[in-house]
Order: sequence, then C-alpha cells, then structure tokens
Amino acid sequence: MLTELRREAYEANLALPAHGLVALNFGNASALDRRRGIFAIKPSGVDYPALRPAAMVLVDVEGRVVEGRLRPSSDTPTHAELYRGFAHIAGVVHTHSIHAIAFAQAGRPIPALGTTHADYFFGEVPVTRLLRKSEIAAAYEIETGRVIRETFARRDPAEFPGVLVNRHAPFAWGPTAAKAVENAVALELCARLALYTLLLAPGRGALERPLLERHFLRKHGAAAYYGQGPARR
Amino acid sequence: MLTELRREAYEANLALPAHGLVALNFGNASALDRRRGIFAIKPSGVDYPALRPAAMVLVDVEGRVVEGRLRPSSDTPTHAELYRGFAHIAGVVHTHSIHAIAFAQAGRPIPALGTTHADYFFGEVPVTRLLRKSEIAAAYEIETGRVIRETFARRDPAEFPGVLVNRHAPFAWGPTAAKAVENAVALELCARLALYTLLLAPGRGALERPLLERHFLRKHGAAAYYGQGPARR
Amino acid sequence: MLTELRREAYEANLALPAHGLVALNFGNASALDRRRGIFAIKPSGVDYPALRPAAMVLVDVEGRVVEGRLRPSSDTPTHAELYRGFAHIAGVVHTHSIHAIAFAQAGRPIPALGTTHADYFFGEVPVTRLLRKSEIAAAYEIETGRVIRETFARRDPAEFPGVLVNRHAPFAWGPTAAKAVENAVALELCARLALYTLLLAPGRGALERPLLERHFLRKHGAAAYYGQGPARR
Amino acid sequence: MLTELRREAYEANLALPAHGLVALNFGNASALDRRRGIFAIKPSGVDYPALRPAAMVLVDVEGRVVEGRLRPSSDTPTHAELYRGFAHIAGVVHTHSIHAIAFAQAGRPIPALGTTHADYFFGEVPVTRLLRKSEIAAAYEIETGRVIRETFARRDPAEFPGVLVNRHAPFAWGPTAAKAVENAVALELCARLALYTLLLAPGRGALERPLLERHFLRKHGAAAYYGQGPARR
Repeated sequence: MLTELRREAYEANLALPAHGLVALNFGNASALDRRRGIFAIKPSGVDYPALRPAAMVLVDVEGRVVEGRLRPSSDTPTHAELYRGFAHIAGVVHTHSIHAIAFAQAGRPIPALGTTHADYFFGEVPVTRLLRKSEIAAAYEIETGRVIRETFARRDPAEFPGVLVNRHAPFAWGPTAAKAVENAVALELCARLALYTLLLAPGRGALERPLLERHFLRKHGAAAYYGQGPARR
Repeated sequence: MLTELRREAYEANLALPAHGLVALNFGNASALDRRRGIFAIKPSGVDYPALRPAAMVLVDVEGRVVEGRLRPSSDTPTHAELYRGFAHIAGVVHTHSIHAIAFAQAGRPIPALGTTHADYFFGEVPVTRLLRKSEIAAAYEIETGRVIRETFARRDPAEFPGVLVNRHAPFAWGPTAAKAVENAVALELCARLALYTLLLAPGRGALERPLLERHFLRKHGAAAYYGQGPARR
Repeated sequence: MLTELRREAYEANLALPAHGLVALNFGNASALDRRRGIFAIKPSGVDYPALRPAAMVLVDVEGRVVEGRLRPSSDTPTHAELYRGFAHIAGVVHTHSIHAIAFAQAGRPIPALGTTHADYFFGEVPVTRLLRKSEIAAAYEIETGRVIRETFARRDPAEFPGVLVNRHAPFAWGPTAAKAVENAVALELCARLALYTLLLAPGRGALERPLLERHFLRKHGAAAYYGQGPARR
Repeated sequence: MLTELRREAYEANLALPAHGLVALNFGNASALDRRRGIFAIKPSGVDYPALRPAAMVLVDVEGRVVEGRLRPSSDTPTHAELYRGFAHIAGVVHTHSIHAIAFAQAGRPIPALGTTHADYFFGEVPVTRLLRKSEIAAAYEIETGRVIRETFARRDPAEFPGVLVNRHAPFAWGPTAAKAVENAVALELCARLALYTLLLAPGRGALERPLLERHFLRKHGAAAYYGQGPARR
C-alpha cells in the first residue's frame, strides 16, 4: 500500500546523510498523502545504509501505525502534530545538522543576515520556547510538535519553512518531502553563514528589509521570476 | 551556434560544485565571446547534475537572450553589466562560497593578511556599498552590476579579480571563465584564512607592502617568474 | 585463536578513520572476551590501510601479550586498566578526534548543552585531573587508565561512556567494540556542537535536568522506547 | 637519471592534495639524494593532476637546474637553502594548509597545548621574523630559507621538523620526503587543534614539561618504544 509514498519518504531519508545533515542513525523524514491522511516515516533507530523503501512505516495523522513491521521513529508524534497544524505541507524533516543545532543549543534564533537566508526564510528562523517540566514528563514528542505550532501562531509556515527546537535541533518542512529536505539544507547553510558572520561582526543586525523582500519574493512571491516555471517551495 | 562558448560556460559551472563553492542550485558562471558581444550562461534554477552544454543560454552584453530554450540565470543582468564595464574580462562567476559570504554579510572587506592573498589580490577584496531602496526596487540585478563597477571606479579589475556584494555574496572574473573559477576558489580560500587569522589575532593589520608587491608581481607583473610561461590571470 | 575477537577489534579500528576520528596512525581500538580475560588490540604505529585482522595482538587484562607477532599499541596498559576497572564494558576506543581533543587540551569538560548530548551522556563529559610528575615518569600508560578510573569513582561508566584525558585526547567504551566506536563518534559530535554553541553563547549553561533525563532515559533507561528492541548501549 | 628520486618527489607532491594540504597548484615537495647533492622538485605552477614523475626537475643544492625541461618551483631556492643548512634532512615540503597559514598570518607560533603536538614537536612551532624590505627586494626565496635557518640557530631541526614563515605559510622537513609530508600533516593538525583550544580557553598555556618530554621521547628519543622498530622521524 502506498508504494510511491514509501519511496518518497525513503528517498528523503537517504538524502539526509547524503547532504551531511545527520550522523549515525539520527534524524528522520516523512512524506504525507494528505488526501488519505497517511504519512510514511523512517523506522526508529535504524542505520541509514540499512534502510529500504518497504521498511518505511505508514502512520495516520493522529500518530497511529497503519502498516509496517517496525516501530516508527520516536519523533513520529511530532511529525503528526505538524501535519495536523500546517495545512499546506506534505513533507517534514528532522535533522541533527551541526550549525543549526548550535543555534538551538544556544537558544538563539538564526538572524537573517544576508540574501542567502532571504532566498529561503522571510526573516529570522525562530527558536521555540523551552518545554515545561510537565510537558517533558508527559507526551514529550507531541508537546514538541505543539510548541512548534505555538511558535507559528503568528507566522506563516510557508514563509518560514523551518524552526529550531530549543536545546534540541531543527525541523523543516515543505509541500513535498524533497522540498523539506532542500529547506533543511538551506537552514543548515544559513546557520553556518550566520555563525561565521557573527564571529566577524558580533553585533551584526538583520539585513535591510527591502533586500529581504526582494530576494524572498523573487523566488517565492506571486511575481517570482527565479527558476524555469511558477514559483514553488 | 557558439558550441565552444557553451562548453566553456558549462565546464565553469560544473567546476563550482566540484570546488565546493555552491550548494543546491545556487551560483552561476558565464563565458564571453567578446568579438561577438555574446556570452553563454547557466539557465535559472537548474540543479548542477542536470546541466548540459546545450542548456546554456546565449545572451548579448545588453542582457537580451540570443538563443536558448530556457530562461537564463536571474543574475544575468549583473554579468552583462560587468562585461560592459570591464573591458578585459571574458569570464564571470557568482558563488555562494561560505567564508566569502560571511565577510559579505558582515559588510567587511577581506583584508590582505598574507602571501596567499597577495598571490591573487593586490590588496583587500572590496565590499560594495549597500544598494539604496530605489535601486533594489527597480532593476535590482543591473544595479548589482553597477554598484560593483562603482566600487572599481578607482581600482583595476585585473588587480582585484573579485568583489563582495554587501549582504549578498562574491563575484569573481578573469580573462577566461576557467580563470574566473580559479579566482573564485582563491577568494574563498583567502576569506577562510582571514577568518581564522582574525580569530587568532583580532586586530591584525594588512601584510607589509613590499611582501604584497613581491607576491602579486611574481605571479602577475610584467616580470612575472611564476609558472611555465608568460604571466596570465 | 580468538579469530572472531580479532575481527571485531580489526573492524572497530578500521571504523576510526572511516568516521574521521583519527589522522595518520593515531588512535586504537580493542575488543574484550571477558570470560577469558583477553582482548585484541591494534599493533603499535601501524598505518590503518595496512591493518589486517591477523595483525591484532592478543593481550590479557593484566596487559601481558598472549599472542601476536607485533608489539601492541603503546596505549595497551590503559585499555587493560579500563577493562579491569569497568566490569561491564567489552570495547575501548582511543581517538584523536579534533573537537574532543580541543576540550581535553583546554582542560574543560564537555558541557551537556542539548539533547544530542543527552542521547549519549547523562551529564557533562568529564576531564581527568593532570597526572603528577611521578606518575608520568613511571608507568605512564597505566597511570592514564588509573586517573580515568579515579575520575569515575562516583560516576557510572554506563551513564558516561567516555572521558577526556587532560591535555591528551578522549577514550570511549561500551558493551562491544562497535558500541565503543559509536560512543566515540557521539563524543566528537557533542564536542563540536558544544564548541559552536559556546561561540554563540559563551556563558551557556547545561540543558535543563528534565530534558536531560527524558532524552537519556528514552534511549538507555529500563523504559527505553527508542529503536527496535530493548535498550542497549 | 635519478628515476627513484624523481618518483619519491612525485609521490610526496601527490600526497599534498591527497591530505588536503594544498589548493589549486599551491605548494611543493622535494626529495634529496644527499650523497650526490641533488634534489628532485615540482615544476612551477603545474596543477597536481597533471604531474608526472618525469616532470620533476633535478636541482643541485646550490639551486642550479641539473636536468629537466620545465622551470622548477619558484620556491626552489628555499628548499636548497634548507638542504644546505640542515645536515640531516632529505625531504622538504611547503604547503598552504589552512590552519597553519592562519597562525603564520597572525605572526603567532603554534603553542604546544597537548600530547598530539608533543608527539611531533618538542615545543612550540616557531614563526620566523618578518623579512626586511631589502631581503624581499633581492633574492626573496633564498632569504626565506635563510630566515628559517636563522630561526633554528638555537633549535634542532630534528626536534622541530617544521616552521611557520611569517605572513606566508609553513615549511616541514624530515629524513625522507614521505616523512616530511607526515610532519606537514601533523603540523596542520596541531595548528587546527590549537586554534580550537584557544577559542575554548584563550589564555591557555603550554602543556606541562614532563608530559611534553614523555610523549616526544616515547616516539623519538633513544629509548623510544612507540611503533614496531627503532625510532625514526
């Protein structure tokens, strides 16, 4: 069932180590079939070279396993929560990419310091508030999804296709699993650029608003003129 | 038409990911046939592994497409502006190399801190002024080229074969597209060396003038004695 | 004799350069057969590409060579000391991984700054005290093992499967040689994340206790729910 | 003539990009036949992939070309000067390795901060004084060799098999060209470790003398016990 969805999730998962976004068996990616409300996700604690499309676990958006012999990623409830909360996404990626984690561990958003950032994010990449003791003790992985949604109460997930979970690591998303991977690559790149920029100019502020808008909108706005077709993200 | 020029541009574009100067589909390179006033450039938003020589778009130095089924890089007007402004160049490269971008985002020139830098640049690599709101709103990519030319009003582009566009990224050039790539590699290397040097010695000033001249001129001057033939750059 | 043990040690040693944890011929790994009290270890000063399973040296837990044509690693007495002192380990790895060494050279423990760290270590990775002049002059490599054991007088080696030897480098261990390698990979990753985090937020303290416990225990506690089977480390 | 010597130089040169010690066509290695007073060295400005053993240029220790169709490296007079000054070396390597250059550009010696450093260098890696204007204007490359020798007036080149040329880059040497390459790898590793250590602990002083001696002498002293045979370096 849903062979294509499994393959999409499988390929997104394999793209994580290929792009240097994960070490060991860290991280996970999923792909959603929004019509059926089912997503395919990496099984828990399996090494990437051992992954196969058939090993992807099918889960519904309530987080219940629909099909699969293996246990799904322990972060599955976070994915489900994001799919329930963000109506226009169909791919979610959780990585352990180095520089993004450094910002998450520091509890700092990634400031929008240049046009590379503006090509993907319409302002700073936000960091969630710390979870409360009671949230950690209870359904921790669901609460992780909830605190991300809380962070986006007044933000558009299409304008900020990624977030830093405080003390933890980034999540990224997109209209497809492949696009979620691309956004995770961009998020890590922006984090690395920001770290080096701040080493050179510690108090450096955000780039100027007109430049932010020009770059974001030439790739993503209604009048986008970057690439070969209508704007996608 | 201009099969060789397309191949030259194609190879320069492929050299960008091979040298680690770009991620995703960022960056672009072009090669100019100055006699005809036509250059070949990467199509917009195409992934590097999917590039083919025939996909290169032919554009004249006024920025008008001459031949090609795909839309040219959105940075094409910047390339055209540089070819119009710098009479002796026939290759332009725009990269997203990490350390050079960090300096561009910080709004700092890359200081000439050692002989590796002096082998390629006859002083600090300049950073452009910020574009004005009106320049960003209008023909942004042309204005990017213009502000580079403005930065070189009193500099020789042969002595400084690269620049940092403020808040954005580097451009490099040369007498051929291949040489423009080499200069982009050197620019990134110098940026990385400068970042580490400044971490070790924050107030470190430029290297001494006689050493700067000796290294630059032994590779590039009329009396150059580096390499196997007459000096080229 | 003990062909399988030799192969296990051989594969753990080869994993060190494969994971980028060593340069040149630095570093070494061993695998213990606890029932027999014998471990297999890398010969001294041999380059990794030249290693063969048959070249592994068999040594008893008193540090005496049992079988092997080559001289064992000069760090063999340290391995023996750890096997004698830590009853539940059967693999030891000594690496020269870059970021972990930086903390060791700085004489600083690696603080537990985020959940990646908490997935492997139940608090900061400790650093040993400096050896005394008399300890260095005498049985230096045995004393290195002893000072690690001293550091763990009030710590559980299963909760902290690694240590920084002051001014020197990390050691890691586990219930198998493969798991010791994984812990060494995690230790290096945590050190790198911590360095970058501290550059962004110099005074950043340890992550909150409930989060530390949640992450460590979801992978390692009696009620672990990460992965496909009962918790191992 | 001297086919073996050319091959030795060729392999040492190829090892430089393989170890990530050079970019583009930077850097060079040579191998000396001390009995004949002739060394083989890389031709000037040739890209590494295009090198062939037969292209190595034979030069005598006075710096005069003995055989070869190509112009030798522009740094040839520096190699010759080192072979004349250091009686027990037969290999010299000049790299553009990133972290070592950062220290050279900063004008700072690489402090001996840990045992990895002590395995190769018996104290800090020195940095030469700046060349005077007259020295730069005259026989610059010979003066580079002379200032290295001046730096070693009271140091043993066997205890410090490398140096930083101020504002420029490192040189390393050894009893063979292969060993010179190994020392250049170690020098770059020590520079990288030192940079990270100083970021974590800015005022960190040298490691304790007994530990320095123990590590250096267990690999290099008369009573060395590291490796499979008598100590070499």
